[in-house]
Amino acid sequence: MRSLASTKRLNGPHPVSDDDMTLIGDIGERQLIEDFKTFLRPEGRVGPGDDAAVIGKDVVVTTDLVTFDRHFPAGMTYEQFGWYAAAVNFSDLAAMGARPIGLTAALALPLDLDVQAAYDIMSGMDQCAEFCGTGVVGGDTKVGPGIVAGTAIGSMDGIKPMLRSGAKPGDVVAVTGPLGGPAAGFAALDHGIDCQEAKDALYLPVPRVAEGVAMAKTGAVTSCMDLSDGLGTALNTLCSRSNVGIDVEFDFLIHQSYVDDIAAQTGIPLEKLLLDWGGEYELVFTADKDRLKKLYDADVEFSIIGMVHEGDHPELIRDNKRSDIGFGEY
Amino acid sequence: MRSLASTKRLNGPHPVSDDDMTLIGDIGERQLIEDFKTFLRPEGRVGPGDDAAVIGKDVVVTTDLVTFDRHFPAGMTYEQFGWYAAAVNFSDLAAMGARPIGLTAALALPLDLDVQAAYDIMSGMDQCAEFCGTGVVGGDTKVGPGIVAGTAIGSMDGIKPMLRSGAKPGDVVAVTGPLGGPAAGFAALDHGIDCQEAKDALYLPVPRVAEGVAMAKTGAVTSCMDLSDGLGTALNTLCSRSNVGIDVEFDFLIHQSYVDDIAAQTGIPLEKLLLDWGGEYELVFTADKDRLKKLYDADVEFSIIGMVHEGDHPELIRDNKRSDIGFGEY
Repeated sequence: MRSLASTKRLNGPHPVSDDDMTLIGDIGERQLIEDFKTFLRPEGRVGPGDDAAVIGKDVVVTTDLVTFDRHFPAGMTYEQFGWYAAAVNFSDLAAMGARPIGLTAALALPLDLDVQAAYDIMSGMDQCAEFCGTGVVGGDTKVGPGIVAGTAIGSMDGIKPMLRSGAKPGDVVAVTGPLGGPAAGFAALDHGIDCQEAKDALYLPVPRVAEGVAMAKTGAVTSCMDLSDGLGTALNTLCSRSNVGIDVEFDFLIHQSYVDDIAAQTGIPLEKLLLDWGGEYELVFTADKDRLKKLYDADVEFSIIGMVHEGDHPELIRDNKRSDIGFGEY
Repeated sequence: MRSLASTKRLNGPHPVSDDDMTLIGDIGERQLIEDFKTFLRPEGRVGPGDDAAVIGKDVVVTTDLVTFDRHFPAGMTYEQFGWYAAAVNFSDLAAMGARPIGLTAALALPLDLDVQAAYDIMSGMDQCAEFCGTGVVGGDTKVGPGIVAGTAIGSMDGIKPMLRSGAKPGDVVAVTGPLGGPAAGFAALDHGIDCQEAKDALYLPVPRVAEGVAMAKTGAVTSCMDLSDGLGTALNTLCSRSNVGIDVEFDFLIHQSYVDDIAAQTGIPLEKLLLDWGGEYELVFTADKDRLKKLYDADVEFSIIGMVHEGDHPELIRDNKRSDIGFGEY
């Protein structure tokens, strides 16, 4: 039996010591997470740094927290909010190619919230779980300002997980579906433009779980991640984790026509809607071009947007001119 | 590939329809969870209704959310709060006898919180995970009022999980350690009594993971759960889930002497401290008395507190008088 001796560090020295107090608001959430990684003991076969962790023999797990405050755009229903809270988690499993086997839901809800809203949130989570082939297997409910922390658990079923590292020069770069929908939805709301298609893309993201599992099984995919932080950020991450450069052809960035319309009506450059926004749940991946046939055979729908080459960052080619692709602002 | 057709229920009829709005504060969190269970699709091999769910082949998962508001007694450090947030989850795995293989942490923290506090919370979670033989494998951090949603994942390693059902007349009832410590700690704080031992029991609960795994392996345990909602509630739950009665001998309820002291100093009946409070992380279990030797051989420390018999509720025997054991107030 282990003893409490292993807890001797409690109240001991801290990883950072500074007489000047630094607030979370000063450094931001992303830096905070980076700081955590400097002192957490490594555990599991994969992660941190990928969409999800691989633990035990074959188990994949990921957690994402959404809030009324930040992830509840005008016009979204509680049921859609619940779907969204589940979808962001399943999308992380999809990026690894894991088959979902369960979802847990920890809720912190206001005492003055209509119980029907709570039922709707949980029903939305349940429906998204059903769409992904699993269910809500556990949960907790406490009082709070409107927070849902989902955790999705999946199995690799003996298949190798798709990681963010692994892209090789010569590989093709592809996405699983049209881009810019959620960004257009957000812009439409922000500018008072009535475009239901755009809003639906924002309200009801579709986690590409079936696609992710099928892709992982082909063995053709060399790296993969989801677009929750936007295509620009994702491409930068793939380049840095795989030590490669990527060229993306602007004309290959497929999108629905309403994205053009919203760009025109709002004056937001189309490029920004396609690259710089998050809340997008397609997968971006690289694949060995000699094994593309396996992806076609697996009935995975995808669109090639560029190529991997020697280098260290992604560039956009538009009208024969090159420009660096940034991390986006999301 | 599955299609979005399966989401057609979105915005469709709800499980409850009532013109009068009911608020979460009107029905309480426990009733809300009961309501959720009426419409969530079943998933997994075990649960809801047990400490954790068993999913896939051998995976056990549980989630619990703690808040600055409700789970941060005076004098507790941020590091202890982090330990606590992890411990409540590992305790649920322990109750099933699962071996922990990972912990995820979703945090919602105030922007004006000292980053050192955030490091301390995460370090406390990491240390509790280390004590339980695993680590923090994933996380998320957003802005919020101070909420930590942990999810613990475990493996049964081919062993049958211990459930709340399964107790049989003739079994012994036992606990893994002394009772009433956290209740005494809370009472000490509430009454301004300086008793560090009691406070430590409250601040640093020890999840009985090694004990739970060893107990499950013996095959001698017929039912088990943790005492997070107090012994009274746990005994009622075991009776109702196993369709049995339980007799508990008051004199068998082991506790440290400071619990007697706090009872005397505060005027709170000892019985209340031992039975009616939560925040306790020992395990209560029933075991086949012909197989108790296996538990001794496994070096599991435990104390017998009573017996299972035909019936439907737990009773306390004190000075040869019987009284019903209630659910407690926690």
